[in-house]
Amino acid sequence: MSNSLKLKSENLCFNGTVAYYSHFSSVCNCEMNFAVYLPPQAKSQSVPILYYLSGLTCTEENFTVKAGAQRYAAEYGIMLVAPDTSPRNTGIAEEDEAWDLGTGAGFYVDATVEPWKKHYQMYSYVTQELPQLINANFPVLANKQSIFGHSMGGHGALICALKNPDKYLSVSAFAPITAPINCPWGEKAFTTYLGQDKKQWQQYDASELIKKTQLDYPILIDQGMADTFYEQKQLLPETFQSACQEVGQALNLRFQPGYDHSYFTISTFMEDHIKHHAVVLCS
Amino acid sequence: MSNSLKLKSENLCFNGTVAYYSHFSSVCNCEMNFAVYLPPQAKSQSVPILYYLSGLTCTEENFTVKAGAQRYAAEYGIMLVAPDTSPRNTGIAEEDEAWDLGTGAGFYVDATVEPWKKHYQMYSYVTQELPQLINANFPVLANKQSIFGHSMGGHGALICALKNPDKYLSVSAFAPITAPINCPWGEKAFTTYLGQDKKQWQQYDASELIKKTQLDYPILIDQGMADTFYEQKQLLPETFQSACQEVGQALNLRFQPGYDHSYFTISTFMEDHIKHHAVVLCS
Repeated sequence: MSNSLKLKSENLCFNGTVAYYSHFSSVCNCEMNFAVYLPPQAKSQSVPILYYLSGLTCTEENFTVKAGAQRYAAEYGIMLVAPDTSPRNTGIAEEDEAWDLGTGAGFYVDATVEPWKKHYQMYSYVTQELPQLINANFPVLANKQSIFGHSMGGHGALICALKNPDKYLSVSAFAPITAPINCPWGEKAFTTYLGQDKKQWQQYDASELIKKTQLDYPILIDQGMADTFYEQKQLLPETFQSACQEVGQALNLRFQPGYDHSYFTISTFMEDHIKHHAVVLCS
Repeated sequence: MSNSLKLKSENLCFNGTVAYYSHFSSVCNCEMNFAVYLPPQAKSQSVPILYYLSGLTCTEENFTVKAGAQRYAAEYGIMLVAPDTSPRNTGIAEEDEAWDLGTGAGFYVDATVEPWKKHYQMYSYVTQELPQLINANFPVLANKQSIFGHSMGGHGALICALKNPDKYLSVSAFAPITAPINCPWGEKAFTTYLGQDKKQWQQYDASELIKKTQLDYPILIDQGMADTFYEQKQLLPETFQSACQEVGQALNLRFQPGYDHSYFTISTFMEDHIKHHAVVLCS
């Protein structure tokens, strides 16, 4: 294992291993945290990898303790990797001023604006540096990786997949922000990290990206109908749905009556999502 | 629903409902908190009840968000009830001085010593007041209830079952404190809540109680072998095992290699425990 990886804790779970790590990230220029689940199959063979990107305010821990994903990852033999949602303790003065910006809110973009750009390079971190680290240090099938996420992390998963159709074999999301250039959270984050030029924003907007690149596999999205952020038009799944229809992108958008934005919803549909990825990762 | 029950939050989960409540407890003489899971079956029929008692430092939330129990409760049609682990904000000066005493550490006994006895009546709360409240306010089969728990709550589950063989139909525990009169945690708590007379302690010690009352059903216990509190002799499952053997009590004590004291262990074996209870609750 690389010297740069620091193991912070390790627990047995469903006969596999939950582990938390930190390491110095060269693209984010600071210490970064992530959690993994290595399924029992990894003791004797290389396994596929499923990345999970979390939502606003989360760390790598929320998914790890609340989603109930380990059971299914153990069943199918898939490694789970859950990065933190942003750099932390960077020294940027504004980093802790708002809950939806800075710490816990990296938005999976590469910032181009001062003072953020020195550290907030989450897109490159998630799509390049972290996979290199995982591939170098764990018994994985580097050519078998997929990605999913929740809310801001659902946005992250969609743009990572759409910008890298050869890198990820499947994508899914729970209540994703699907049109960040047209919702308050996205407008605030993109103005801060990318500046005023809205043309620059489009490269990180799933509903824009889908117009240029279609995926040759279906996208799965679950959206709770009692989700207050859906009601507040932060998520805009219909915008993404229309864009997919226009270009003929296969999308399985499931509206779930009564379900909200919480991990109680995520845990309920986790099995469906892991199965969605297992079909391609484990074939 | 009783006016005394205050609904704090409600989320759909596996087609049932997770809900947090508070209410004024007459036995604890203060506001108390608990969480429930009502399975989907409860919409059309009365369901059995499974109580879960948590360990030191926990609230009703730990089990609710980390154990992954809702999936199985939904499958079998069982209501889950998870009380808080102690009174809170009672005004007792010492209540927050130590993590293993007072707040978060009620130890499921009825305190007889000042200043605790006015509020710390967790045994009566868990076995009498809370079940009355549940039976009066939810669509349950009052004669079909069982109990399980973790660590301090495993101790709680065992003593509740042993002191009330007609009230609970089954019992199980994860890493329970099985001989509190002989471990540091128990000695400290019982001295504080019950006083110096060790005779009084025996009524809350599972390894003592089993000598007087045997259960006509088998007890299930899972104990991780990498559990630091097991290594520190806080749990003493062998003491309970010997006592069970002496009196012919059926005990399924499973030592789980590599598993620790965490919810990662609990979630791994949750399905087995819910099945253990479902066999009798759903027959």
